Amino acid sequence: MKARAHISAPSLAVARGVARPGTRAVAEEVPVALSYNGTTQAVMMASPADLEDFAAGFTLSEEIVKDLSEIERLTIEAHPNGIEVQMWLAPGAEARLARRRRHMAGPVGCGLCGIDSLDQAIRPLPTLPDTPLSLTPAQISAGAEALRGAQALHDITRAVHAAGFFTPDAGLVAAREDVGRHNALDKLVGALARTGHEAHAGALILTSRVSVEMVQKAVLAGAPVLVAVSAPTAHAIRLAETAGLTLAALARGEMFEIFTHPHRIATARASDVA
Amino acid sequence: MKARAHISAPSLAVARGVARPGTRAVAEEVPVALSYNGTTQAVMMASPADLEDFAAGFTLSEEIVKDLSEIERLTIEAHPNGIEVQMWLAPGAEARLARRRRHMAGPVGCGLCGIDSLDQAIRPLPTLPDTPLSLTPAQISAGAEALRGAQALHDITRAVHAAGFFTPDAGLVAAREDVGRHNALDKLVGALARTGHEAHAGALILTSRVSVEMVQKAVLAGAPVLVAVSAPTAHAIRLAETAGLTLAALARGEMFEIFTHPHRIATARASDVA
Repeated sequence: MKARAHISAPSLAVARGVARPGTRAVAEEVPVALSYNGTTQAVMMASPADLEDFAAGFTLSEEIVKDLSEIERLTIEAHPNGIEVQMWLAPGAEARLARRRRHMAGPVGCGLCGIDSLDQAIRPLPTLPDTPLSLTPAQISAGAEALRGAQALHDITRAVHAAGFFTPDAGLVAAREDVGRHNALDKLVGALARTGHEAHAGALILTSRVSVEMVQKAVLAGAPVLVAVSAPTAHAIRLAETAGLTLAALARGEMFEIFTHPHRIATARASDVA
Repeated sequence: MKARAHISAPSLAVARGVARPGTRAVAEEVPVALSYNGTTQAVMMASPADLEDFAAGFTLSEEIVKDLSEIERLTIEAHPNGIEVQMWLAPGAEARLARRRRHMAGPVGCGLCGIDSLDQAIRPLPTLPDTPLSLTPAQISAGAEALRGAQALHDITRAVHAAGFFTPDAGLVAAREDVGRHNALDKLVGALARTGHEAHAGALILTSRVSVEMVQKAVLAGAPVLVAVSAPTAHAIRLAETAGLTLAALARGEMFEIFTHPHRIATARASDVA
């Protein structure tokens, strides 16, 4: 299986009825199987890049391991129909894997698969500790701007999502891209864990909309602030409120909106400056 | 469970560091369980609207029924944690359900869930018959424009996808919206089947990107032409090529690009008009 993140596809560009043959760079999308101790846990359509990060982040997001030391070995193998990432877990993680398997017979990019009842649809989330993190509005905007500058695959294909991590001290620490927005965030979470970065020190920044699963992944990663370029859903807002997550969205230029827990963003109130 | 497709959420609008309290219309997102003959098949996060269409379209897309007459009864029940759509199938469909269950232990909005091996990741697709349908470039552009005019929920929330069906004779026949792009297409497919429209008579139009699952759903619905406002993935292009689907994308104003089977769109070649 070819494993480039984008290809050049022939296309007919039509303008006012007239077609001109040319090419268009399009994002690749391949089935990626994640397996633990020899058994496939999930198959997701993903961009074939940063797959070690993807596997690490997915495994953390699904609470199969507490930290990456419990992944004892990881191999990546190309098959004719896709790519398989095989992981072998430490003995302690095996029990968690069995427990999680009962809850998700076949998980996938959406983060909600395999569940078989409404009660299991929304996982109970921990409440974030009240970390001392404080960001200025200028830092929120700078983070979103920096992420836009780190979307190499999107610059080529105009069709993939990105997730980044921004701290007041270091700026944009890392960014990852994928055809799936859940995958992009899993890749970022994995990249941060693999390089020893603590998510509680900064803000996760997403190009995508914020659905329930994005809040779940952010909270489980320990990030106190989630900033999105696009809009949140009502359910995502409720979940962020309950979990103590600061949720900002619709970040464009120097403007954004805060939906939950605004105390971590140092704004002036309109009445104070009037 | 509240079942409105959008709510008004309090937000702090921040501009240049100054925060003004206000509200923002956001899309609702609720767990929707689809069950057959008393057993849950899938739980998906979806916009709580047009759920009969959603259930019908999902059931067709998953090839659980051949046509809607095999769904003998359908009820919708609100639960504290979500909404359950219960369907009872005709005897013949039960065998297909059991077969499909083996292939997808827990399917969901992404269309690829529950599969547990790379070989199962991409379902074999039928090849579309070579229907006499022919669209002009102006009709493609008119269809995309008409869909933009039929996005009531998106106009309010700026955060949901839409799928529409356009025929040369009738224009935009139907449009459906959802927080998930797969769900929007399933809702449309269900709406067409429920109103007796044949998908082979026109083009499916999507606001979203075209991934593998969108091509699968279009082909299984029998639509010969798929038009998207956003970009296709490389894998989606390959699948459309194999299945005989005309795939056009990046539709903006009077421009779009054709990636596969261009014979169903009556363009002039640049060399002919030079």
